[in-house]
Amino acid sequence: MPEFRQNPITKEWVIIATERARRPHEFIAKEKPKAIPSYVATCPFCPGNEHMTPPESFRDGDGSGWQVRVTPNKFSALALEGTRWRHCEGLKRSAAGVGVHEVIVETPDHSLTTALMPVEQVERILRCYKQRYYAVTEDPRIELITVFKNHGASAGTSLEHPHSQLIATPIISPQVRSRMEEALRYFDEAGECIFCRLMVEELGDQKRIVAENGHFVAFVPYASLSPFTILIFPRRHMASFGQINDDEVTALAAIQREVLARLYYGLQNPDFNYNIRTAPSECRYVRYYHWYLSVIPRLTKVAGFELGTGFFVNVSLPEENAEFLRGVTLPESFQASA
Amino acid sequence: MPEFRQNPITKEWVIIATERARRPHEFIAKEKPKAIPSYVATCPFCPGNEHMTPPESFRDGDGSGWQVRVTPNKFSALALEGTRWRHCEGLKRSAAGVGVHEVIVETPDHSLTTALMPVEQVERILRCYKQRYYAVTEDPRIELITVFKNHGASAGTSLEHPHSQLIATPIISPQVRSRMEEALRYFDEAGECIFCRLMVEELGDQKRIVAENGHFVAFVPYASLSPFTILIFPRRHMASFGQINDDEVTALAAIQREVLARLYYGLQNPDFNYNIRTAPSECRYVRYYHWYLSVIPRLTKVAGFELGTGFFVNVSLPEENAEFLRGVTLPESFQASA
Repeated sequence: MPEFRQNPITKEWVIIATERARRPHEFIAKEKPKAIPSYVATCPFCPGNEHMTPPESFRDGDGSGWQVRVTPNKFSALALEGTRWRHCEGLKRSAAGVGVHEVIVETPDHSLTTALMPVEQVERILRCYKQRYYAVTEDPRIELITVFKNHGASAGTSLEHPHSQLIATPIISPQVRSRMEEALRYFDEAGECIFCRLMVEELGDQKRIVAENGHFVAFVPYASLSPFTILIFPRRHMASFGQINDDEVTALAAIQREVLARLYYGLQNPDFNYNIRTAPSECRYVRYYHWYLSVIPRLTKVAGFELGTGFFVNVSLPEENAEFLRGVTLPESFQASA
Repeated sequence: MPEFRQNPITKEWVIIATERARRPHEFIAKEKPKAIPSYVATCPFCPGNEHMTPPESFRDGDGSGWQVRVTPNKFSALALEGTRWRHCEGLKRSAAGVGVHEVIVETPDHSLTTALMPVEQVERILRCYKQRYYAVTEDPRIELITVFKNHGASAGTSLEHPHSQLIATPIISPQVRSRMEEALRYFDEAGECIFCRLMVEELGDQKRIVAENGHFVAFVPYASLSPFTILIFPRRHMASFGQINDDEVTALAAIQREVLARLYYGLQNPDFNYNIRTAPSECRYVRYYHWYLSVIPRLTKVAGFELGTGFFVNVSLPEENAEFLRGVTLPESFQASA
C-alpha cells in the first residue's frame, strides 16, 4: 500500500507510490553521456574568452592561467548597485531587486562535470564558494546567500561549460523562514538540533546511507520528495556554510564528488541541481539550524497535483535508491584520483 | 531595475527580472499545434475501449454514449480501500496512503483540448467536477480534494486524450495550511476575505485583467511566479468549490474556455497545468478563504535557485502578459460556439 511520509524539517508530505514505484535501473538514461569537447571557441567560460564576461570578482589560479573564476552574472536576476527599499500599496508589496548574482566557472575544461574532475579541483571550487560566501556576507544589504548548480537542460541550465552560481538576496524567503521556525520549535522541545538528530537516526538505520567520511554523511532522506535526492550533512553542528574549516572542505570535496560520481555512473549522467542550504546571515551562529548540501536529480516532472497542493509523489523507494547508489561500481580512474 | 514582488496569499517573493525579461511574443511556440486524430484505437480513453480502464464511478451521457466519464486511476497514487493510520518512530512520520485518485475523461474526442471544445462540453466537465467533489466529500477519511489537469509533456502528462484528475487526501498539506493561516491572519486584522480584497484591487488597477464576466474575474497576479500564470476568481465569496451554483458553472465554463483559448491561440498551445484550489472539507464554510482556479503555463523551468530558496524568478512582466492575452484575436469558430 502507498504511504505518506513527512519531511521533519519542512513538514512537507510525500506520497511514496509503492504500487507504481519504478525500480532504480528504470531511471538509467537510455543513452551513454555524449562526448563533450574540452574547448569551445564560442563559449564565454572557456579560457581566452574572459572578455566575454563582466570583470572578474575572484580568481583562483597562478600566473596567467586560472583554475576557478568568478564573475558577476551577465544576465543578473538582481541589480548589484542600489539601496534596499520596500513599498506597500494596498495588498501590493514590492522591494528593491538588489543583491549579488555571480557565476562560478568551475574549471577551464569545457568537458568536465564534478564527477569527472580531480578531487583537488572540487576542493578548489568549494574554497571559492567559501571565499565568496565571506565576501558577500560583508554586504550589509544581504540577508540570505545561496550557492547552487544547474546541470543539464531539465535542471534549467543553458550553458554547457561547468559552472555554478551564487545569489544573495536582501530578503529571507518564507520557505527558509518556515524551516527556521520548525527547527527552532524542535530545539525548544527537545533541546537539540533537529538536523543533528536526523543524522543520528539515519546512521542508526543505515538503510538510506549513500556514503560517509570523517566529516560528512550522505543519505537519501526517508521522506525524499523525488527519486535519488541526496542530502550531505556535516557531522559537526554548524548553522552556516561559512563555518566550514579546511579539513571539512577537503572531506566535503571527496564526498560530493563521490555522490555525484555514483549518480553519473549509476544513472548515466542525469540532469541535477545541487544547492547549499545555509542559515541567513543574521542566524549564522544559532544552535537550532544546520547547513547542508542537497543534490536533486531531475528525473521526473512536477505536475498539477504537486503545484496545486504542495504534496509530492515519489515514484521510487528511498531505501532502494540508496542501496542502488551504494552498489554502483566506480571506474578505476575515479578511485585513483580520489 | 529588477524588483521583488510578494504574493499576499502565500507570502512568497518573486523576482521580476526586468533586465532580462522576455517580451510576450518570445514565448510563442516555434511550431503550430500539430494535428491530432479524433480517435486512436489503442487509447484507453477513446470510446469502445472502456474495458481498458477500471469500472466507471460516474458517467455523463445518454443511452450507450457518454460525454464525460470518470474512473478510478489505473495507476493510482493512493489506495481506495483502507483505513487511516499514523505512525511515529523517532523523527519518522508516516501515514496510510489511502484516498481517492480518479481520472475524468473530458470528451470522447481524442483531438480536443479545452480551448477547442464547445462551451457546453466545458460546462459538462465542470458539472462532473462538482458531482465528484460532492461524492468524495462524503468519504469520512478525506480532508482535501484537488481537481487538476496536466496538458502536454512539460506539464507531466503521458496520455494525449483530454483528461483531468481528482486526488482526495486524508491529510492537509503544510502548503495549504499555511495559506489558510495567512488568510485567517488577514481576516482577523481587516475583517474581510483577502481574496475578495485582492479581486477589488485587481479590478481597480485593470492592468492585469485578462477576462471577466458576471460571475468571474481572470487576471495575471501582480506577483506572478511564472510567465502567463492566470487566476480565475469567483466574484461571490465561497471557501469551497462545492458551493458553486448552476449559473456560476455556466459562467466559469465560458471564462475558463476563453482564458485557455487566449493561451492556445496566443502562444500556440503551450503546455499547462490548471488546478482548483479549494478549502479543506472541514473549512468549507469559512469567511476567510476563497476557492479559485489557477492556470499555470509551463514555459520555463524551475532551477537550483528556486529549489534551494523558495524564491522564484519571473522573466516576464505580469502587466505585459495580461495585455498580450487581452489582445489575442480568437477565431470566428470560437466566438460562434461561445
